[in-house]
Amino acid sequence: MEWRKIKLTFGYQGTAYYGLQRQTNGPSVQLEIEKVLARVLQHETVIVASGRTDSGVHAREQVAHFRTTSRIPAERLIPAMNTLLPDDIVVLNAEDVPMDFHARYHVVEKTYRYRLLNQSIPDPFLREWSQHIKAPLDLEKMRAAADYLIGTHDFTSFCSVRTRVEDKVRTIYEIRIEEYERDATLPHQGKDIWLTFRGNGFLYNMVRIIVGTLVEVGKGKWQVDDVKTMLEAKNRDVAGITAPPHGLYLWKVEYRKSCDSK
Amino acid sequence: MEWRKIKLTFGYQGTAYYGLQRQTNGPSVQLEIEKVLARVLQHETVIVASGRTDSGVHAREQVAHFRTTSRIPAERLIPAMNTLLPDDIVVLNAEDVPMDFHARYHVVEKTYRYRLLNQSIPDPFLREWSQHIKAPLDLEKMRAAADYLIGTHDFTSFCSVRTRVEDKVRTIYEIRIEEYERDATLPHQGKDIWLTFRGNGFLYNMVRIIVGTLVEVGKGKWQVDDVKTMLEAKNRDVAGITAPPHGLYLWKVEYRKSCDSK
Repeated sequence: MEWRKIKLTFGYQGTAYYGLQRQTNGPSVQLEIEKVLARVLQHETVIVASGRTDSGVHAREQVAHFRTTSRIPAERLIPAMNTLLPDDIVVLNAEDVPMDFHARYHVVEKTYRYRLLNQSIPDPFLREWSQHIKAPLDLEKMRAAADYLIGTHDFTSFCSVRTRVEDKVRTIYEIRIEEYERDATLPHQGKDIWLTFRGNGFLYNMVRIIVGTLVEVGKGKWQVDDVKTMLEAKNRDVAGITAPPHGLYLWKVEYRKSCDSK
Repeated sequence: MEWRKIKLTFGYQGTAYYGLQRQTNGPSVQLEIEKVLARVLQHETVIVASGRTDSGVHAREQVAHFRTTSRIPAERLIPAMNTLLPDDIVVLNAEDVPMDFHARYHVVEKTYRYRLLNQSIPDPFLREWSQHIKAPLDLEKMRAAADYLIGTHDFTSFCSVRTRVEDKVRTIYEIRIEEYERDATLPHQGKDIWLTFRGNGFLYNMVRIIVGTLVEVGKGKWQVDDVKTMLEAKNRDVAGITAPPHGLYLWKVEYRKSCDSK
């Protein structure tokens, strides 16, 4: 009986789940995946993910690892699992990795994206996929405010007080704010805005608090320079509200090349 | 007490409804809109739409008219209705039109779009918004087959036998098949394909039967020229299966300029 390690890449619509991590009080993505793995591998299996996602947050590409004694080819796991998983969770890839690969500790970069729909009326197609903001947003001000957050900082002001993590220093490599063209023909249709965050890691609620803060800058409630003051205060009370989960996507998780695959 | 006529443009996610039209056995978009109009206008109201959409079909821009004695400015109806409507139905526009405007009889052009996700694995973000096709599709063959359907034809072969309409002659102005780039980084991600249909009107299930047929051509089950034979047969039994509703969107409804607004 020989153990192998598998790296699993999967996506999910977060709407129906209490988040990625196993919960005692409700459905979780982890529970669904572990139930399916137990059937496919014929033994109980615990997955270790790159990190949690909150209730309602989506993942385009989440990564986890697990150990198995099954000899099923990794490639075969993809259709086998997708047949058994609920529609809102999909396995995108499965590959053998060295036994020392770790889906959480070996992350070198994570990308999150947040979608804002900026128009006077809601869009029935995007209600589960974006935050709807009625007031006009000044994207130039939001970009200037975001610039203060790029680099290595103590992000205490932009982290939920419910975290258990001690070290609040993280590095944000990039914050990109892009406006996508909508096929708009009616006067009330507006802007489809994506905020992209690349960093070496993000604290609990960090992306959502940054988005909530940048939106308030975009609305003119705060000035661009206020974000610098917030960052320096190292106090969650001074930053903006936490943006809702349904606009947030874990987009990509990257590993050191040597750990990526055999 | 003076009557006015209002042209209402609205969108909906069709997933939760038995279609646009009022049903005795389940929820409909029409019922939701009429309930809200009764509250806002303070009198019972029946809407007349540009046409039905089936259970599960989405609408980006559906149009209907209704009569009212209310003096509420048309523009005010938009926020008033959106506050009361369920999240999956949104009023996009409301405007006064001449009393002889008719949302069904005065249509000059309708656009439908159908979304195909062509890749080996499903996508959890698109499961309610596209038909997932695993087998590779030959878009060039699909385009060539579609060309046979452009123009004025008797579309009996591409119309549900459950229709009550006698005249099966319709004109298709355009069928466009476009592939959109996906932000794909994994080997199993594929093509996001949109089929766009513009015509003077479409029969019951016509777009879905055409899509089902073109997909079978794209898979190689039928040859390009078979579509010509099907069209000429004027027999529903010879054409392809009806594609599922959740990939279909009523995209736009256009009227003669003189009837469009006051």
